[in-house]
This record gives sequence, structure tokens and C-alpha cells, in this order.
Amino acid sequence: METIDVVLIGAGNVATHLGGELQRRGCVVRQVYSRTEASARRLADRLRVPFTADVDAVVRDASLYVVAVKDAALDELLPRLTRGRDGALFVHTAGSIPLSVWEGLTARYGVFYPMQTFSRQREVDFADIPCFVEANTPQDTALLRRLAERMSRRVYEASSGQRRCLHIAAVFACNFTNHLYAVCHRLLAAQGLPFEVMLPLIDETARKVHELSPEEAQTGPARRYDENVIGRHLQMLSGQPDLAQIYDLLSRHIHDYETHKTE
Amino acid sequence: METIDVVLIGAGNVATHLGGELQRRGCVVRQVYSRTEASARRLADRLRVPFTADVDAVVRDASLYVVAVKDAALDELLPRLTRGRDGALFVHTAGSIPLSVWEGLTARYGVFYPMQTFSRQREVDFADIPCFVEANTPQDTALLRRLAERMSRRVYEASSGQRRCLHIAAVFACNFTNHLYAVCHRLLAAQGLPFEVMLPLIDETARKVHELSPEEAQTGPARRYDENVIGRHLQMLSGQPDLAQIYDLLSRHIHDYETHKTE
Repeated sequence: METIDVVLIGAGNVATHLGGELQRRGCVVRQVYSRTEASARRLADRLRVPFTADVDAVVRDASLYVVAVKDAALDELLPRLTRGRDGALFVHTAGSIPLSVWEGLTARYGVFYPMQTFSRQREVDFADIPCFVEANTPQDTALLRRLAERMSRRVYEASSGQRRCLHIAAVFACNFTNHLYAVCHRLLAAQGLPFEVMLPLIDETARKVHELSPEEAQTGPARRYDENVIGRHLQMLSGQPDLAQIYDLLSRHIHDYETHKTE
Repeated sequence: METIDVVLIGAGNVATHLGGELQRRGCVVRQVYSRTEASARRLADRLRVPFTADVDAVVRDASLYVVAVKDAALDELLPRLTRGRDGALFVHTAGSIPLSVWEGLTARYGVFYPMQTFSRQREVDFADIPCFVEANTPQDTALLRRLAERMSRRVYEASSGQRRCLHIAAVFACNFTNHLYAVCHRLLAAQGLPFEVMLPLIDETARKVHELSPEEAQTGPARRYDENVIGRHLQMLSGQPDLAQIYDLLSRHIHDYETHKTE
């Protein structure tokens, strides 16, 4: 299989996990760039490769540039990055940024979106991570697909519209879900109860939707809109109005889904 | 170990799972009562025991009555149930109902709260279900603890205040979480994408909090309050104002936790 030499643009959680996996799968990471020198250095040390904090010092002859920076940085970064690096393939890793962000900047471009929650403190098995690829030519789509398939068993082509939907769905299923765990953590801590006691319930809630649809799996007071329980819970949260509002909205929304099952 | 003969009051998800497990652990289920005859019959058939839909026809000499009905039914049911059944131990299974609901009704009473999400379509391993017990005497607390330990490796004594907190925390960690999966399901379905693609992310989100605190595990646009992404997502949800409001509130709340980590 072709050797691909890669420059990592960004040194956050996605760049860290993707960079390590690219190396393990036989790619050559040539360099790490981050605007923040300490971040660039940390990831470069981990991968044992050179780094730079100066975009003009990014090597010019790599075959693939993987951009994993926060979305807000793209507008300023991409024109400077692509300039003078014709012929290479450029990809970003952002769920909600369309392919068209590259238009007019360079000839070969795409998206490589690994849909997972990456934290620096935790290793993940890339083989199980759904990876969504898109490029501006069938050849580069195929190249990205081959690259993704070295790392993951779950590789899909997805349009920018589909990926945008995947990203917002992932915010609900992962980021917001994790925040509900955090709320749970603080509620328990306030009573001196350990968060660990909730893990079997958290695990079963996740396992259940492997077999049942989430609508079938729904339980709890909001499903039947039990006003007694909901009223008592809202009273318990009266000192935390934001949390009470979240509780109220989610309960009503559960009941709406329950009463309009086909929508 | 003592043989306990039990009457199940209620025939919903909790009564179904608990009844089956009590039988497997050597208890004698004497009878099933439900106000709805069809429900009583269905569970009684499953357990191969008699049933009744008339509370006055509930057997009078059982040693334990397990009440697993919706909270709103308790006020009317408990006085009729306890009358003429002195000497037996009565327990309810509701997370948010205090022990004191039994006061003045009977001499021996308690709570047996299995904290899990029960759906009739899915078997669960009771051994992993945290069970919280409480009674009005140390003897009956010990009896409930022994009974719970026949079924589960995770038995705790909890006061009514602690259990109330566990219940609301479970609503966040399970019921609301599952609803976020349902939202995700509908968002994906609207783009012709299968829900299954989200399962690795859902699983990793749950697994992560076995190792990291939920606060450490948090990722996504709301953590850093990425206004570009959040703005685009809110625009995508503009046709579903309730959902947009949930998105907005949860994003702000994540950011609040992030910026006030110690609270």
C-alpha cells in the first residue's frame, strides 16, 4: 500500500489521536504545526517528529495536510496554508464545515471526519470509530477511503449535508449526554453519594439502544408525564433555575415524542 | 435462607422484572394484583401464579407486599392495601416517594428501590442493578438487605433524602440521556442515515465516565463555546424551536460548568 507522508495542522485531541493512529498504520508524520508552540511541541514529542508554530515554516512537499483546528481558526489559516503547496491533498476533520470551505484555495481537497469523542487522557480503539470521507474528485475520495480503512472498520462516504447532520446528532448523543452525566455527578455529590453508583444505569441505557429504538427504550416519569414526580423534581431544582428549565423542557419534549410517535 | 412469600402489587416493567427475579431467587410469588385486569393476567401468566384486579381480593397472609405502581396511584391504594394485613412487611419501589408514605398505615414498612431502566422487551442482569433499601426498623432493613443481596451485588441502605436525589440524578443520566438518543435518531432519519452509525460514539461516551469524571470527559463545541458551530447548529434547528431551545440551554449550561469547575 502507498506510503503517505502527512503534516498535522493542529495539536488538540483530534490531531493527537489521529496522528498516533496514522503513524501506527504506516503513514509518515512529517511535522506538527500549531499556533501555540507548547501544544505543537507536546504532540511532536509524543510522535517524535519536528514541529513549528509558524505556518510559513510548514513543510511544502508533504502529500497530505490534515487540518484539525477549531472551526473559528479556519478562515484565517486555510489561505496561508494552501499557498505554495499545490499538488498536495488537503483535508479538514470538522463535522460541521462543508467541503466547499476549500473552494478556490487549492486543487485537491477533502474531509476526513472521525466521529468520536477524543480526550487526551484516554486511548480509543480507532477500529470502531466511524470515519466519514469526502473529496472533490473520485480519485481523492478513493484515496481517503483507503486511508480510513487502514484505521477503521467503519468507513463511509458522506456528503457535506449528511456530515453536518451527523455532527449535530453527535452533539446530542455525546456532548449533551456527557453533560447530563455531569449534572448527575453534581446532584449526587451534593448528597455525598458517589457517581460510580450510577454507572450500571448509564451502561444499560447505552446498551439498550443496540436492541431497541430509543423511543421504545424510553422510561421514566416524563414518558407518562407523571405530574407528581415531575412537580417534586422541579421543586428540588428550584435553587438552580437553569437546571430546572432543562428538566422541564426535556420532560415536555419526551412527552411530545411519546404522543407523536410517527413524526 | 428464609423463604419469603410475596404479593406483587402492580404489573408494569418494575413488577415484571422484580417478580421474575424474586422467583429465580427462591421467593414464592403468591399473587399479582393490578387495577388493570389484562396487565395482572399478563404478568401472572408469565410467572404462573394467580392474579386479581380487586384490591380486596389480595391474599391476606403473605409475608411481603411489593408495591410497584405509578406514584399517583399510591395515595388511594396504600390505605386499602394495608387494611387487615397487619404483621406483613410492605415496601414500595419508587425512587422519589419517602418511607413516610407508610406512616400510620401499618406497623412494618420499607422501600426497595432497584435503580435501573426496565423495558418489558429486554432482559437485564439483576446482579448489576444497584438496589437501595430502607425500613422503619433495623430488623426489616436487615431483612430487605438480605433479600436484595440474593439478587444483586450492589446493595446499599439509603435514606429517603438520598433516594430522592438518586432518583432525580437517574432521570438525568438515563431518561434524559435516552431522549437525547431519540433526538439523534430523528435527526439522522431525516437525512436517511441509520441510527446504528451513532452506537460507537454512544458506547464510548458511556465508557469514558468509568475512567474520567464527566467534567474531564466533556468535549464538543459547547465546552469551548464555539459560537460559529453553535450558531450554525441553532440555525439548522430553527424549524424545531423546542429542540433549538434545548440545544441552546444545554450548550450554555456546559459552558457554565466549564467556567465554574469547582461548584
